[in-house]
Amino acid sequence: MSIKEFLIGTPLETIKEKQERLTKTLGLAVFSSDALSSVAYGTEEIMIALLAGGAVLLHFTLPIAITIVGLVAIVAISYFQTIHAYPNGGGAYIVAKDNLGVYPGLIAGAALLVDYVLTVTVSISAGVAAVTSAFPALTEHAIALCLFAILAIMIMNLRGVKESGKLVSFPVYVFIGGLSLLIVAGLFKWIRIPAPAIHKQVVSAAASALPLFIILRAFASGCATLTGIEAVSNGVKAFKEPEAKNAAMTLGWMAFILGALTLGIAFLAQGFHILPKANETVLSQLTRAIFGTGPIYYVIQFATALILILAANTSFADFPRLSSIMAADRYLPRQLSNRGDRLVFSNGIVILGLLSAVPIIIFGGNTDALIPLYAVGVFTAFTLSQAGMVRHWYRLRGDGWIKSMFINGLGTVVTFVVLLIIAMTKFMHGAWIVVVAIPGLVMLTHKIHSHYLDVADELSLQTGNKEVEYSHHTVLIPLSGVHRAVLKAVKYGKALSDDVKAVYVVLDMSEAKKLQEKWTEYGMGVPLILLHSPYRSISGPLMDYIENIQTEYPAGVITVILPEFVPLKWWHHILHNQTALLIKGKLLFKKGVVSTSVPLRLQK
Amino acid sequence: MSIKEFLIGTPLETIKEKQERLTKTLGLAVFSSDALSSVAYGTEEIMIALLAGGAVLLHFTLPIAITIVGLVAIVAISYFQTIHAYPNGGGAYIVAKDNLGVYPGLIAGAALLVDYVLTVTVSISAGVAAVTSAFPALTEHAIALCLFAILAIMIMNLRGVKESGKLVSFPVYVFIGGLSLLIVAGLFKWIRIPAPAIHKQVVSAAASALPLFIILRAFASGCATLTGIEAVSNGVKAFKEPEAKNAAMTLGWMAFILGALTLGIAFLAQGFHILPKANETVLSQLTRAIFGTGPIYYVIQFATALILILAANTSFADFPRLSSIMAADRYLPRQLSNRGDRLVFSNGIVILGLLSAVPIIIFGGNTDALIPLYAVGVFTAFTLSQAGMVRHWYRLRGDGWIKSMFINGLGTVVTFVVLLIIAMTKFMHGAWIVVVAIPGLVMLTHKIHSHYLDVADELSLQTGNKEVEYSHHTVLIPLSGVHRAVLKAVKYGKALSDDVKAVYVVLDMSEAKKLQEKWTEYGMGVPLILLHSPYRSISGPLMDYIENIQTEYPAGVITVILPEFVPLKWWHHILHNQTALLIKGKLLFKKGVVSTSVPLRLQK
Repeated sequence: MSIKEFLIGTPLETIKEKQERLTKTLGLAVFSSDALSSVAYGTEEIMIALLAGGAVLLHFTLPIAITIVGLVAIVAISYFQTIHAYPNGGGAYIVAKDNLGVYPGLIAGAALLVDYVLTVTVSISAGVAAVTSAFPALTEHAIALCLFAILAIMIMNLRGVKESGKLVSFPVYVFIGGLSLLIVAGLFKWIRIPAPAIHKQVVSAAASALPLFIILRAFASGCATLTGIEAVSNGVKAFKEPEAKNAAMTLGWMAFILGALTLGIAFLAQGFHILPKANETVLSQLTRAIFGTGPIYYVIQFATALILILAANTSFADFPRLSSIMAADRYLPRQLSNRGDRLVFSNGIVILGLLSAVPIIIFGGNTDALIPLYAVGVFTAFTLSQAGMVRHWYRLRGDGWIKSMFINGLGTVVTFVVLLIIAMTKFMHGAWIVVVAIPGLVMLTHKIHSHYLDVADELSLQTGNKEVEYSHHTVLIPLSGVHRAVLKAVKYGKALSDDVKAVYVVLDMSEAKKLQEKWTEYGMGVPLILLHSPYRSISGPLMDYIENIQTEYPAGVITVILPEFVPLKWWHHILHNQTALLIKGKLLFKKGVVSTSVPLRLQK
Repeated sequence: MSIKEFLIGTPLETIKEKQERLTKTLGLAVFSSDALSSVAYGTEEIMIALLAGGAVLLHFTLPIAITIVGLVAIVAISYFQTIHAYPNGGGAYIVAKDNLGVYPGLIAGAALLVDYVLTVTVSISAGVAAVTSAFPALTEHAIALCLFAILAIMIMNLRGVKESGKLVSFPVYVFIGGLSLLIVAGLFKWIRIPAPAIHKQVVSAAASALPLFIILRAFASGCATLTGIEAVSNGVKAFKEPEAKNAAMTLGWMAFILGALTLGIAFLAQGFHILPKANETVLSQLTRAIFGTGPIYYVIQFATALILILAANTSFADFPRLSSIMAADRYLPRQLSNRGDRLVFSNGIVILGLLSAVPIIIFGGNTDALIPLYAVGVFTAFTLSQAGMVRHWYRLRGDGWIKSMFINGLGTVVTFVVLLIIAMTKFMHGAWIVVVAIPGLVMLTHKIHSHYLDVADELSLQTGNKEVEYSHHTVLIPLSGVHRAVLKAVKYGKALSDDVKAVYVVLDMSEAKKLQEKWTEYGMGVPLILLHSPYRSISGPLMDYIENIQTEYPAGVITVILPEFVPLKWWHHILHNQTALLIKGKLLFKKGVVSTSVPLRLQK
């Protein structure tokens, strides 16, 4: 218990839930790290994709970045509306389920859950890759480092929303401050660089070729920037009151910072003629070009590495919330909707940690192949949620519904087009896994739901009539010998019923005779039944005997009392209780039989 | 059930045990395959070790082989005496424990158990290595093949002693017949070869150098031939009556065949001037030299490959027997002494299979490093068992005790000297693992034993007085809602006691009110207790309430009834019963409380 309290802190009372909510400042740190982390690699991804068509295509970097920032604006405004329309939390799952039906909702939910798992996997392994490239000696421990990082973020989140927010906010704000400084200083430096004449010539020569597919793929790569933008909408309930207003403000700030940083980096990368290199990131080259390799460079590099890892933290904030909502609707195991000691959905946090570790172990920490998967899931959720909002406005038709519907309609169309572009250009790069994982998850949620419905139906008091009392109660005590644990069980059995019988399965007649003699002395008058077992099975003859009793008293109940040893050390379990466990397992499937363990706590 | 019966056959009655015993012919096959397999590589091992001192030392091959055959004779005669003195099975464990004390017995037992595990590991991986060198395409599946072979031998042994004996006897007798034919044909061919003059010159030139250490190491390598010679003594009880006589006869035959084949191969290897090669075994070269590469060659090669793998079978016959004896003495978990469906000690067979797979997985099937470990364990057991016999004769002093004592005394001295030679020359080659594994196992057996003694002491009826009846019986039924499973539990509770209370832990007041209303209608007059839980713990308030009741009725007993769902599909378990399981776990550690599961079998 004290280790647990050391790691995650003392339990919090339920009524403290509102005090554990996030301010806008903390909320921005918690929910934006995923989106902002893409600033660190977004421009580079675009440039690498463009380079496949030759260096001449690089001048498309800025136009693509501008398009993406436009996209950020459209999606952010759409979600802004969503949050106000669903002040109790309006993630893609809820919006799509409310307005489009159960299956679109489940698809959106499944897409987001898969996305969150992959975000953790990819960001953790990317962050660890950055560490191991700086310290090559650690390369062989990459998987262990990844698992350790996941464990650390898991524990941080189990400590509660507010505490993890406080831990995250420092690197996030250092990153935002550092990059802002970089862009401002870069712009001042750029003004004094003369534009190279040669560049323009190359551009005009290449423009006629226009390899549309490559440009679209570069755009699709850059769309990774939009992942995480929906995070706030799933976490509205994590904000202090008024939740919707605070969440919407946070979303606005996040979109602004994301857009400004993306635009600034893309502009400067082109302005300083930076090319992607195998062993140095574009951001690192840019920082070095502007500040030189001094202390500022190291601060920005370190903050970048941290934010890459902390992108996982946003998933740890959102996955448990979304899964708790889906569990409350009985589409996921209900344990996911329980709040833990620190008022967070601990089961969801632990499950996310375990699930995200699986691809790391399978792919050995090399998770590049998973990166394209992100965007498909995210844009599926975007499209469904925006389409749901269009339906929402049309159904309500309140004040200014046409304007609202237009905004979300634009969002729907734009995100759907982007989804098609990504699916088209990236399908071979592994997006097919999402085509398997998301439908698989939807099917699973469906099965879980119908199981819970079946059980509710079976348990319903409408279908069954009131229970009547049992006509007879037989108590059976299987013996392994005559000792204190058995006498304890007999004493308990006599408290239950007058019809108590001791049962011994005979494997060796001479031992049975010894036992019979001992029983006459210690058996407290309870009759002893000997059952013969030619095939040495303990449970078989016992089950047969139980069936005999049931034929005698069809409306009765039988209780089988099994003495259970509770040892002090875990490995002592191996030395005891195996037969009792086996009998218990068999009894579970017998109607009209109840098994009871009378525990004997061993002292040594 | 039918898969199990297909694999291992239908259960056998206990009284059939004597019909399942082995004849001498089958017994020789079962218990000699380990010892005989060393014929396949023993001479080669000696030659390779000698080659380290130059080819000139090779003429020591035959003298070393003769010494080893002498050793076989001494050890066999010693064990012959042991079997007659202990007609109920006289393995090293029993003899050492009876005559030298518990610890020497445990050391001998542990040494043999470790030896059996390593025998399986090494023989299986050597056999698979032979297969993969014939079919290199299989190399990357070596581990899978090893595990499959272990599984196959495991299942074969689970089918019963007699059936596995029948399966083993064919390759064993083909091997014995083939090698006998080889030696006879070889001798006839050898007579017509003139002795090369050059050989003698080299010998006299080298003899002065006399690198004693190399010769001793070659001798130690050759001593692998003796492993498995103790197998019969551990398996006396597997023979038909008269057990001791049949076992001793089998041992005699085994020693004779082993000695004759070893001597024959060593003599011919030297006679035909065969040198060890990297890619062909000495036995293969010799067979080719005598019979050419014809059908007889292939039969002998195939039988040799089979006997290398079947060496593992002897361990599967002995390990479960030895561990069942040690388990009956409470030095190992008692489950090891249960006979399975086919009257063999199934748990021991399965455990041996699992344990022997571990080094294969760890070392990736490359188990050469483990070979020297064999001999240390085996000779430790030899020495202890012979020393035990010396003590035995001295204590009894019956007819001819001096002669018997002398034979076993000679055995003790010889095996102890060999043990020292092996330890000295092979220590760095991995024998230190035995120095860790055997003491570790002895410590474990000691801990298991003292735990069983402690429990027996606690359970003893001498220390405690007779149990009196309980003064009061309270039945508690924790509710999660009002449904059929709960009503079933209430009905059962009312059969146990008049003091039945339903308990509900309140997490949300509005839900508690709804429940209260429903309870008034369906609760069968049982009072409902509401417990508040500010920290959302279900078990905490329940445990507090139980303690309150215990203060009120100190001599009473409390039964907690938990409705348990028995779903149709295994994965449905994840969706239910978690809280019940948690409560059960906590109740295990509470005195005077019994937990009972009333199962509700779900139909869908």
